Amino acid sequence: MMKKNKSFTPDWINTPPKAGSVRSIFKWGAPDGFKHPNHRLYEAIKEKFNMNDNDFRHKRYEGSEPVSCDRKTGLDNRQIEWFRELLGPENISVSDYDRVKYSTGKTMEETMKLRQGVPVEVNDLVVHPRNKDDIRKIVSFCNQEIIPVYVYGGGSSVTKGLQCVKGGITLVMSTHMNRVLSFNETNQTITVESGIMGPAYESILNHAPEKLGAEYRYTGGHFPQSFEYSSVGGWIVTLGSGQSSTYYGDMYDIVLSQEYITPTGNFRTLDFPATATGPKINDIMKGSEGSFGVLVSATLKIFKTKPENRRRFAFIFPTWEGAVDASREILQGEFGKPAVFRISDPEETDIALKMYGIEGTPISSLISYKGYKPMRRCLCIGTAEGEKNFTANVKKQIKKICRKYGAMYITGYPVKNWEHGRYRDPYIREDLNDFGMIIDTLETGVTWDNLHRLHQGVREYIKNRPETICMTHASHFYPQGTNLYFIFIARMESIKEYLEFQEGIIERIEEHGGSLSHHHGVGKMIGPWMERHIGKKQMDILRALKNHFDPNNIMNPGGTLGLDLDDDQKRGRI
Amino acid sequence: MMKKNKSFTPDWINTPPKAGSVRSIFKWGAPDGFKHPNHRLYEAIKEKFNMNDNDFRHKRYEGSEPVSCDRKTGLDNRQIEWFRELLGPENISVSDYDRVKYSTGKTMEETMKLRQGVPVEVNDLVVHPRNKDDIRKIVSFCNQEIIPVYVYGGGSSVTKGLQCVKGGITLVMSTHMNRVLSFNETNQTITVESGIMGPAYESILNHAPEKLGAEYRYTGGHFPQSFEYSSVGGWIVTLGSGQSSTYYGDMYDIVLSQEYITPTGNFRTLDFPATATGPKINDIMKGSEGSFGVLVSATLKIFKTKPENRRRFAFIFPTWEGAVDASREILQGEFGKPAVFRISDPEETDIALKMYGIEGTPISSLISYKGYKPMRRCLCIGTAEGEKNFTANVKKQIKKICRKYGAMYITGYPVKNWEHGRYRDPYIREDLNDFGMIIDTLETGVTWDNLHRLHQGVREYIKNRPETICMTHASHFYPQGTNLYFIFIARMESIKEYLEFQEGIIERIEEHGGSLSHHHGVGKMIGPWMERHIGKKQMDILRALKNHFDPNNIMNPGGTLGLDLDDDQKRGRI
Repeated sequence: MMKKNKSFTPDWINTPPKAGSVRSIFKWGAPDGFKHPNHRLYEAIKEKFNMNDNDFRHKRYEGSEPVSCDRKTGLDNRQIEWFRELLGPENISVSDYDRVKYSTGKTMEETMKLRQGVPVEVNDLVVHPRNKDDIRKIVSFCNQEIIPVYVYGGGSSVTKGLQCVKGGITLVMSTHMNRVLSFNETNQTITVESGIMGPAYESILNHAPEKLGAEYRYTGGHFPQSFEYSSVGGWIVTLGSGQSSTYYGDMYDIVLSQEYITPTGNFRTLDFPATATGPKINDIMKGSEGSFGVLVSATLKIFKTKPENRRRFAFIFPTWEGAVDASREILQGEFGKPAVFRISDPEETDIALKMYGIEGTPISSLISYKGYKPMRRCLCIGTAEGEKNFTANVKKQIKKICRKYGAMYITGYPVKNWEHGRYRDPYIREDLNDFGMIIDTLETGVTWDNLHRLHQGVREYIKNRPETICMTHASHFYPQGTNLYFIFIARMESIKEYLEFQEGIIERIEEHGGSLSHHHGVGKMIGPWMERHIGKKQMDILRALKNHFDPNNIMNPGGTLGLDLDDDQKRGRI
Repeated sequence: MMKKNKSFTPDWINTPPKAGSVRSIFKWGAPDGFKHPNHRLYEAIKEKFNMNDNDFRHKRYEGSEPVSCDRKTGLDNRQIEWFRELLGPENISVSDYDRVKYSTGKTMEETMKLRQGVPVEVNDLVVHPRNKDDIRKIVSFCNQEIIPVYVYGGGSSVTKGLQCVKGGITLVMSTHMNRVLSFNETNQTITVESGIMGPAYESILNHAPEKLGAEYRYTGGHFPQSFEYSSVGGWIVTLGSGQSSTYYGDMYDIVLSQEYITPTGNFRTLDFPATATGPKINDIMKGSEGSFGVLVSATLKIFKTKPENRRRFAFIFPTWEGAVDASREILQGEFGKPAVFRISDPEETDIALKMYGIEGTPISSLISYKGYKPMRRCLCIGTAEGEKNFTANVKKQIKKICRKYGAMYITGYPVKNWEHGRYRDPYIREDLNDFGMIIDTLETGVTWDNLHRLHQGVREYIKNRPETICMTHASHFYPQGTNLYFIFIARMESIKEYLEFQEGIIERIEEHGGSLSHHHGVGKMIGPWMERHIGKKQMDILRALKNHFDPNNIMNPGGTLGLDLDDDQKRGRI
């Protein structure tokens, strides 16, 4: 038999970015981490975008040039000297590279600007505080000198949360403030500094017997897609939600207490499991995105973990409607909840079957044989975690419900594939960007009764643009509803075009009754829509709190949560 | 055989209080509802308090006299006329009876004062708003005229939440504003006016197929001991917790969204199951106890209910320590949670075995035969609710853990008895009061690692007083801790002595690291300790919110949540 000619494969970048290069800043995730489109996905992209191999021969805007920054620091020598004296020269930086690096997150807008050499808004000084005492002094000094203070956790913000609109300083929390402060196995809590990163945090809990002298192994239960490059503090202040949130809860539910340093005072909230002593300060602070003060430590709930009890399952549904109805019945079933639970709409299913290695396997043939039609069929994957009988029953009940809606069980194999690549999927972005395509996401919370209207409304807008991919999944479930996560891919190189397109999607989400954000937060990107979304009276409450904590508006100023700036300024159009 | 002489039974009051009498105001619960101490409990009381039958021959301070109120209304004719015009004469009242009735809750202090004819602080006018439009006009008028506004739900406050320290008006929410506004079976939510009472609310949900055209039956999952005489609005603004909260969550968890009318504006919070759009206004308002504004309606999560799946269980533990350790292991077991779950300390167990009809039965003999010692052994009762396999497994896991800690399974029989009398236990208060005894409760939230210290510290204080009963149970469980509910009984007729004793208990709770309240709220009773408890910086946050919503301090003024009044004024000593 003749071996089939291996077809063309683009020269995807497969080496870490050069030190000091622009690419080293905008590249998502680990410098040496890559996930390239596989052959099937590559073919699909060419087909969708009417491209051919020639379009994948020349990369552009790779960002291999060194970082430079036109704007000189706006702090005067006396001020910089104050920081140097407090922290030592090793813990401050005015280098162009550091100033740009710690002023940018991972939005498509920031990536495009960095690639294309469009100036971004940077801080005047990068500061690495060593402990909360440093932060206390810094916040006090900055409040006196009216120096804006931005806070950088893991750097994965996709809402322009790190953008230094007003210059000032950026506090980098992960450099030093990444310690475990205490561990309480009796209460099943751990207290950590806010700069501790996801993998370090989870690893300590998984290895609690060895590392903390604990009796059991634990999990934090929080696995956002940004897990590798996000911090516990970032999870809290942006109201993150992990991929197992359906069982473990959103970060909002997981945080027992927090310690804050604000311009008007420092405090640690109560850490009772429940209390009826008035409005809960702990909850007032969650989601404040650095605009009230600096989160320096938090006490979190942890969970006993027995990975050997985990059950995996995947299904193919005949339709999206069936997948949604089954999900609702599962979440309202009163038999416990799955940990991971995801349903993909037909367009995402089509691509997921390629990405997760199902297409071309016997499972794939069986799916087609059984009559589950492409662009109608929907993939569902999930896991159950907890005690052994509990997970067995959760899986059993889910199977029963899914079958009722005509779904076919396709084993736990697709889940294993998904688990394997779960944090790597975003790495595809760089490959697409290198050849003139954008890939971005917007996500929204929704009640069950509004899900289809919202899905259709947003999809319609995205699909109205020719040659544009729109994949949607729901991945965080509640008895009252879920989220919708829209991923859109298009050939696009104009930042202006991109921003207008993105704005259109946000408008559609708002108009169709979705939450402006389910778990990415608001930052400066969604800020302009906040007042319309929650109404003036409720914005006034947030502004009253802002004014209480930060009367001089030094904490993450410039549009965060839509608290300051007028509408035109907020939008920040190019 | 000779029939044994029936021993003396006190002439417990067994007829509803006279219309217009003081007793008709202070009596707990249904006018025609009674629960008298049974024979075993009566004997135990005499023994504990060194009393004999003669002490139970003459009742005092029965409150059969008609209500009168010295203080004339402080509103002028023009103001009263304004209310009459808005609402009609049938919806306002300046009668002494109504003014006193709607100015008092069910604290021991208020009861003692009413019984002994000590003046209580009353409003100037009782108002029954018909809808939120009435309330909007009323709040606006009162804000303009600086008339204090108090809000009365079901009247069961045990924190002086209803006390009209500054006169003004009381809005009675339950008269008209008790409607179901909408029901959404898809989202499993119901929207009700805040004045709807517990039994009406639960009954509608239980009978959803008949009353709402629903497919399934539902429960609200919230069953506080005050269930019969408390309102949904009251549950929310005081952060109530029901007897099945371990499974269904506290009221805090159950409320999806709320609508408020405040002096500075009216709004309805978002009702997404989750959203990452900054600090959640919905949560900022919970627990505000009428001091920010008037809660006019709320959307609540509801739960599918299948009473036939309910499993009941009861155990006797050899020790309190064992009961606590088992409870902790159960709550941290990741197999789902029980609905009702209660453990009683040795002194409460002793009385519970009498009250719930266990003493004198074969179970009781078996308990003793097996060596579970009085004043060491502890009773545990509970239920599991939800899907059939789920409840079977919860019960199975609980049994396994309890046995590990040496507990004996004593069937579900004590739970049935407890369920039968669950709302009636407080009715015993009137009988004891009639013969010069007080019975009162204070409750607190606590983390597992501090439970014994808190329990012992508070118990020690109470037991230091001679001839004083102190019963304690934990009844609301979380993986991180639970609550402690202290019930104290003593011969006491001096209000001053009572207040000093109560103050001592609150001090002990605070000193020993308990929350000032787990589910009764703060009201004006606990207010004086708030600042010490949460610290000045966190009180400042609550005060900033108060000032934002209610700059003229007309909403529930006079010490609520400790927001106004200086310390001496707050304590309100007699």
